[in-house]
Amino acid sequence: LNAGAFVRVRKMLLDLPASDVALLLESSPAKTRQELWQLLDADFHGDVLEELSEDVRNGIISKMVPSSVVDALEDMDTDDLAETLSTLPEDVLQSVLASMDAQDRMRAEKALSYGEDTAGFIMNTDTITVRSDVSIDVVLRYLRLKTELPENTDTLYVVNRRDVLLGTVSLSRLLTAHPDVNVDEIMDDESEAINVDTPESDVAQMFERYNWLSAPVVDNDYNLVGRITIDDVVDIIREDAEHSMMSMAGLDDEEDTFAPVGQSTKRRSVWLGVNLITALLAAAVSDLFETTLSQLAVLAILNTIVPSMGGVAGNQTLTLVIRGMALGHVSPSNSLWLVRKELAIGFFNGLIWSVLIASVIAIWKQDYALGGVIAFAMMMNMIAAGLSGATLPIIMKKLKIDPALAGSVILTTITDVVGIFAFLGTATIFLID
Amino acid sequence: LNAGAFVRVRKMLLDLPASDVALLLESSPAKTRQELWQLLDADFHGDVLEELSEDVRNGIISKMVPSSVVDALEDMDTDDLAETLSTLPEDVLQSVLASMDAQDRMRAEKALSYGEDTAGFIMNTDTITVRSDVSIDVVLRYLRLKTELPENTDTLYVVNRRDVLLGTVSLSRLLTAHPDVNVDEIMDDESEAINVDTPESDVAQMFERYNWLSAPVVDNDYNLVGRITIDDVVDIIREDAEHSMMSMAGLDDEEDTFAPVGQSTKRRSVWLGVNLITALLAAAVSDLFETTLSQLAVLAILNTIVPSMGGVAGNQTLTLVIRGMALGHVSPSNSLWLVRKELAIGFFNGLIWSVLIASVIAIWKQDYALGGVIAFAMMMNMIAAGLSGATLPIIMKKLKIDPALAGSVILTTITDVVGIFAFLGTATIFLID
Repeated sequence: LNAGAFVRVRKMLLDLPASDVALLLESSPAKTRQELWQLLDADFHGDVLEELSEDVRNGIISKMVPSSVVDALEDMDTDDLAETLSTLPEDVLQSVLASMDAQDRMRAEKALSYGEDTAGFIMNTDTITVRSDVSIDVVLRYLRLKTELPENTDTLYVVNRRDVLLGTVSLSRLLTAHPDVNVDEIMDDESEAINVDTPESDVAQMFERYNWLSAPVVDNDYNLVGRITIDDVVDIIREDAEHSMMSMAGLDDEEDTFAPVGQSTKRRSVWLGVNLITALLAAAVSDLFETTLSQLAVLAILNTIVPSMGGVAGNQTLTLVIRGMALGHVSPSNSLWLVRKELAIGFFNGLIWSVLIASVIAIWKQDYALGGVIAFAMMMNMIAAGLSGATLPIIMKKLKIDPALAGSVILTTITDVVGIFAFLGTATIFLID
Repeated sequence: LNAGAFVRVRKMLLDLPASDVALLLESSPAKTRQELWQLLDADFHGDVLEELSEDVRNGIISKMVPSSVVDALEDMDTDDLAETLSTLPEDVLQSVLASMDAQDRMRAEKALSYGEDTAGFIMNTDTITVRSDVSIDVVLRYLRLKTELPENTDTLYVVNRRDVLLGTVSLSRLLTAHPDVNVDEIMDDESEAINVDTPESDVAQMFERYNWLSAPVVDNDYNLVGRITIDDVVDIIREDAEHSMMSMAGLDDEEDTFAPVGQSTKRRSVWLGVNLITALLAAAVSDLFETTLSQLAVLAILNTIVPSMGGVAGNQTLTLVIRGMALGHVSPSNSLWLVRKELAIGFFNGLIWSVLIASVIAIWKQDYALGGVIAFAMMMNMIAAGLSGATLPIIMKKLKIDPALAGSVILTTITDVVGIFAFLGTATIFLID
């Protein structure tokens, strides 16, 4: 950048809201990212860091001096602080903590004390609480004494002397109530509170299902400890929904589109390595039929069709069941029904595509026996695809393995092996003298 | 269900909130769904319909008599009404509209008048507006006259005599302001409004980026026409994120996990049909090398490895670029950089995996020439995978084709064809006398 451009870019960056600057950084290659970061005002750093995705944020923080990191973290909300610190590499985290003064370090350690991915981890502690026996008028005067309410406050929490949550009063209820009535007459004492240890994905499901804007967080004694607002939950909802897609392609959820080549190559190699083993396994199955393949080259040509169709059908079932689980639709009570349904679809898929492929082969290769063999293999593999596509994620979930991560590989291995075995095995029996 | 169970289930259903009943219906096979639906009180029908996914809702509505549908729609918010009506099959929609009285029909037609998937379509019309020259005290008294505010109201809108939006006042600002000041002194006149024609996915991106809870919707003259609240946007965010995963597996976004077998088989057959053509195309490429394959059966055995690795690597790139586009990170200005990066990853992937596969083949088959041939094919295919994985979605987006829907099939076709050509072609040249 030359001096003129430097001044112009800097001016532009200063005018943008933090979220737009974050988007710009995320859309830039690592080198440009560092240059842009230098141009930002130091007191703007915290706001931008909050909005960045994990990978990009860590890349930037690990290049900052610890004391500037501490400055940037100073104004962050508890939930953003916990999120930022928890994803840092251990050595960077330690040097940042070491640069903090005692008060900041206590706050950071408190924020990190809740389990990652729990309600406590994503909550904010800036709640406004009122007593149940005061009048609305008193509440209104109390609020007016504050110059502003914490961001995204839509509800006041009613607690007793020992901080036990008794109920909630929404701001809109507060505004429509008569000033003379007491809080306990208008408070909602049936609203649900979230336990501090609830996993964040359950929190997201509750927000989505009940259309909440915010919810109180309580500890095991029902003491109010914080609140969760929908804007933080939105990120979790998107991450949860993206997680399956990224995992099924063998990618890390947080993979940064503009990461350096070396880092990306390394991350993606795990999946390619697993796939190489799978492909070699399929080749080893074909290898069992070497004599058959050497006698009939046409089998080699058609050998990929049945595994490929099984893979697609199986992945359709797998994807649907994984999504059904994520939405909370699939449970032990309806799993058997679902497996039976997918088995039936596998059977009908088998019927349709075996008739079709047999016709194509009969016309293309003028060989009815070969058509019959490939049709039988197709039938077998479609049934195997439906069955394994439905049962694999259910079994894996029971074993507490993430089905999105390994399901697709195991499924493809099954459909490859079954497809090749059925095709080359049947061909060996019926087509080879 | 016997009579005793009937009474018990009914009692249980009546105690559940609408969203839980919806979840229960979505988690049940079609037959059970109808039985459960019959057990619900008719005046609860509307609340439950709102919460159901498109496919499940349409299944239920098409089995109801039009007049009961009209009753159920009566209490719905504008956005839910528009959503419900727009997804109905044309004939059902017509008979429902025909059963409405003039006033309801006008309301329905108004709700349907905005383009599907636009801000107008997802907005609610129940805004609370105030004038800029009145005092906060007057506003507070005005609000107290209403017994309750519309659901999820967090902001009042300030408009002039001709309904032009001048600014916004959040409820929390209203509560902290002094009663004597005027609205125009505390209103935020820089808050952004959404145009009624903005696509809903852009609306979702804005809510996510700027952490909004609600936003005003204006027409082209900046007249206030409604508001969008985050709870409706959450559904769009989830659907957008899920869309790519479902499309890449060849599934309809709205596919109902518990749909009848016939319906599911039919829907999934499109993708399987496309895949059959792709698989036949790959077979046709192998067919060109029939003489080679008949001379060396080992080529038939290893023929699937290179295409399979190319498919996985290409799909990793494709998935990452598609997600980058969905998040707004990939733009014309950084596309070239991204293509070059993925090309470089393809090259390094090629290096790593060609060395590995060559070593495996050299050991397994004791054939160094064969190892060299497969290594060369792997190198070519990995580069093709990186290049097409990055360029395909960018080109498809320019042509306004959804990359998630067709990208994966086209990519796999490319990596299959390049992989087979490179492997069998090189083998024909170097291994066959």
